[in-house]
Amino acid sequence: MKNLEVVVSPALLPFYHVKNKTVVVIDILRATSSMCVAFKIGVEKILTLASAEECKLFKEFDFIIAAEKDAIKVAGFDLGNSPFEFENPLFAGKNIALATTNGTKAIKYANENGASAIVIGSFLNIDVLCNWLIEQNNDIILLCAGWKNKFNIEDTLFAGAVVNKIESNFNVDCDSALAAKLLYVSNKNNLENLVRASSHAKRFQLQSFQTDDVKYCLQMNSAPVLPILEDNYFKKII
Amino acid sequence: MKNLEVVVSPALLPFYHVKNKTVVVIDILRATSSMCVAFKIGVEKILTLASAEECKLFKEFDFIIAAEKDAIKVAGFDLGNSPFEFENPLFAGKNIALATTNGTKAIKYANENGASAIVIGSFLNIDVLCNWLIEQNNDIILLCAGWKNKFNIEDTLFAGAVVNKIESNFNVDCDSALAAKLLYVSNKNNLENLVRASSHAKRFQLQSFQTDDVKYCLQMNSAPVLPILEDNYFKKII
Repeated sequence: MKNLEVVVSPALLPFYHVKNKTVVVIDILRATSSMCVAFKIGVEKILTLASAEECKLFKEFDFIIAAEKDAIKVAGFDLGNSPFEFENPLFAGKNIALATTNGTKAIKYANENGASAIVIGSFLNIDVLCNWLIEQNNDIILLCAGWKNKFNIEDTLFAGAVVNKIESNFNVDCDSALAAKLLYVSNKNNLENLVRASSHAKRFQLQSFQTDDVKYCLQMNSAPVLPILEDNYFKKII
Repeated sequence: MKNLEVVVSPALLPFYHVKNKTVVVIDILRATSSMCVAFKIGVEKILTLASAEECKLFKEFDFIIAAEKDAIKVAGFDLGNSPFEFENPLFAGKNIALATTNGTKAIKYANENGASAIVIGSFLNIDVLCNWLIEQNNDIILLCAGWKNKFNIEDTLFAGAVVNKIESNFNVDCDSALAAKLLYVSNKNNLENLVRASSHAKRFQLQSFQTDDVKYCLQMNSAPVLPILEDNYFKKII
């Protein structure tokens, strides 16, 4: 059987073997949720970048540019990182360049370390993702983007939901996978309250941000797509 | 109110402010459990070291030398890292030099980064520790030693047990503290089975190691001491 592991912060990825594994990047609030929404409405491809500065360069090539810093849209950009902003039918057929605080750096790291496939996970595409992971039957790392390299609860809960769905098809000899699953199973009927209690969601509230982002990002299977990294761009393969 | 945070791996400590905080080092299987046992039977002081090589140097100064690597006693040392080995009345009044895979490095890191106090936590001294933390009323980091910088379940469960005991006295705005507490609360009647299912305990079993170490290290308050770092050595202050 292939192995299934959970990494609770990008800063811990160097302690795992990444080469030839499938890496699922998880940034529930909000990068990977927003990416699923974008592909659902027909965006062509998404370029993820580590900084707003790099991202801005793509404006002249007719990319829609999106950047948030500390959960706020950066001035001069078309979009921040809220899934509501990405749900715009006018974006169908367009390309997006996206910089985020946490998710993008994790994607870059996985790519540089020889992952055989890098895909995007969120509650919005959980079943499509899980079915594809089972079909592929490769070693898997569920990589939580976290918050500035710290553990966060919403990404870990999602990782636990995935472990809970697919563990019978994989060998799970990983304490963080076990813990994430137990955390998800004992809180699955209370996810929204728990995520609202997270430090990340509290930051939204402090900034008078759209607090419905939390509810939006917990809608199971509302964007049943599978974004995968191919030649530097994410594209939809399902 | 002072802050209470949980760090699930020593590799994540650089992302937290350590300066002037009280750091509780947690290495349930088995360094911090064994240290509590040693002080209970009357050991004078314990020097923790990052490598077996450094540790060996202290043999000539009449230290008892203890080192394990990958959960096995290193050849040529008096002790490995099992609490059973430390429970020896002949060690009363002696000094121990201890090298371990995970715990020692975490202690060194906290010390170098300006922690105001570094104390040792285990289920064996949990109530003494919690009462002291409440009395001190300083910012706290519960630092899980983990396994080779990976998340481990037994250290996180213990951190959750501490959060559960003292959270009403502190401000807990930390996702890993919240997750650790939820994990502990929903599994507290099943701790032994869960820790036996951990990757760490499985390593003991694979090595035909004393599997009773798990049960031993889960005995609540069986070594009610408080080891604290003072001038490079751990000493018992309670």
